[in-house]
Amino acid sequence: METTTIIETRYPECDRMGIIHHAVYPVWYEIARMDFFAALGFSFTDMDKLGVNPAIVDLRLQYKAPASYPQTLKVTTRRGELAPRKLELLYEITDESGVVINTARTFHVWTGPDGRACSIEENLPDIYAKLQNS
Amino acid sequence: METTTIIETRYPECDRMGIIHHAVYPVWYEIARMDFFAALGFSFTDMDKLGVNPAIVDLRLQYKAPASYPQTLKVTTRRGELAPRKLELLYEITDESGVVINTARTFHVWTGPDGRACSIEENLPDIYAKLQNS
Amino acid sequence: METTTIIETRYPECDRMGIIHHAVYPVWYEIARMDFFAALGFSFTDMDKLGVNPAIVDLRLQYKAPASYPQTLKVTTRRGELAPRKLELLYEITDESGVVINTARTFHVWTGPDGRACSIEENLPDIYAKLQNS
Amino acid sequence: METTTIIETRYPECDRMGIIHHAVYPVWYEIARMDFFAALGFSFTDMDKLGVNPAIVDLRLQYKAPASYPQTLKVTTRRGELAPRKLELLYEITDESGVVINTARTFHVWTGPDGRACSIEENLPDIYAKLQNS
Repeated sequence: METTTIIETRYPECDRMGIIHHAVYPVWYEIARMDFFAALGFSFTDMDKLGVNPAIVDLRLQYKAPASYPQTLKVTTRRGELAPRKLELLYEITDESGVVINTARTFHVWTGPDGRACSIEENLPDIYAKLQNS
Repeated sequence: METTTIIETRYPECDRMGIIHHAVYPVWYEIARMDFFAALGFSFTDMDKLGVNPAIVDLRLQYKAPASYPQTLKVTTRRGELAPRKLELLYEITDESGVVINTARTFHVWTGPDGRACSIEENLPDIYAKLQNS
Repeated sequence: METTTIIETRYPECDRMGIIHHAVYPVWYEIARMDFFAALGFSFTDMDKLGVNPAIVDLRLQYKAPASYPQTLKVTTRRGELAPRKLELLYEITDESGVVINTARTFHVWTGPDGRACSIEENLPDIYAKLQNS
Repeated sequence: METTTIIETRYPECDRMGIIHHAVYPVWYEIARMDFFAALGFSFTDMDKLGVNPAIVDLRLQYKAPASYPQTLKVTTRRGELAPRKLELLYEITDESGVVINTARTFHVWTGPDGRACSIEENLPDIYAKLQNS
């Protein structure tokens, strides 16, 4: 499974050099991640109700080419490694010409309503099964 | 009473034209506002504990001169109109040369723990008295 | 003429209280403003090439109801007062139920390639005529 | 050499859960990086004049504990691997109790006035020597 998210760059996301500031990418990847979970049938609203969410513990980004404003970018998101308590997601951003401008990985630990790490395999077996098949 | 807040501009706060983006100023004014309340003996931590805070209902900014990065700016904050349920604050930002680059007014309605408007004169008479004398 | 811009709220735009932070609205209004100018046939790319743009000199926002994440909001934009060197724009944001959550006005002074105020009636008579008819 | 940067967290940097949003950390690390270079005698203003700057090509963050508002955090910055065209920087953020809340690495490629990668050993031998000794 691979989900696609379209991002329209915003004017203030550009820095003095006219390129998208590097701290903006994690925001876009989070939007893409929400789309990925929603496609699995586990929307942010679901997470919010259940109090179970994928806390980010590690984030790695590679800046391959600059983006600017105005541009329409495409983020693709797919699953990396999976374990009952852990999840890795892999992302790629391409521009209008298909050039890869950024890639990223995020590592998540599932946390429960008490704010502590939990096993999604135990707590949300349906979602875990969907992640396995994704 | 007038409080002073020093702001060091940040690189990503500049836009493509090399000037501080206009949406950044409300963030700086909020920092200045917290300093103003702290000087009155009513810090954010106090507000948070009591569940009473000055919800912003109106914001007016005048952009008089551009700011850039790196710059050290000075925000001054003082009280405008005051009523048991309402508060106006007045702000001015000057650069290193004393040139006024931005002025603003914020209008606030006090809200209580239930999220509804409340009278600070009744709920927090000490703070109200300090605001009157400020 | 009235243009419509759809905004999907973003997770980090919410503050500790779960509501969209007040400094986010100017960013959305800028997106709406770009849509307004694009509808007039004067896109950001055109502005950028010509070096003529509507510098913001005054911004007024009224916060009428909170917004949150996730929400899909609608911004409408229309012209206010117009003069050869000045422009006022009027905005309104409504939520999915049609409730008005925010209104705003921005005042602009046209600046030319030299960074100084200019008359758009003289420099871009076509755009000025379109603004008059909008 | 290790430089220290003090960061006061800002209210809108907190998300709905009351913790600093993960996309804020790269902004703080950039502030810390500028302090590191300034301590070497190579300020942002110098970079800007010379047109030579350390373009970020890779960013890795580890989220170890949450931060909130208001908090005063300390970022320490030191050099990692160095080559004529490349630079790695290592960072750590601790809270008021000395607890490490975040660590990061950034990888940079030096770019010159033409926007292309360049050797800082050739172009700025003094800065390169200082980096070697740092």
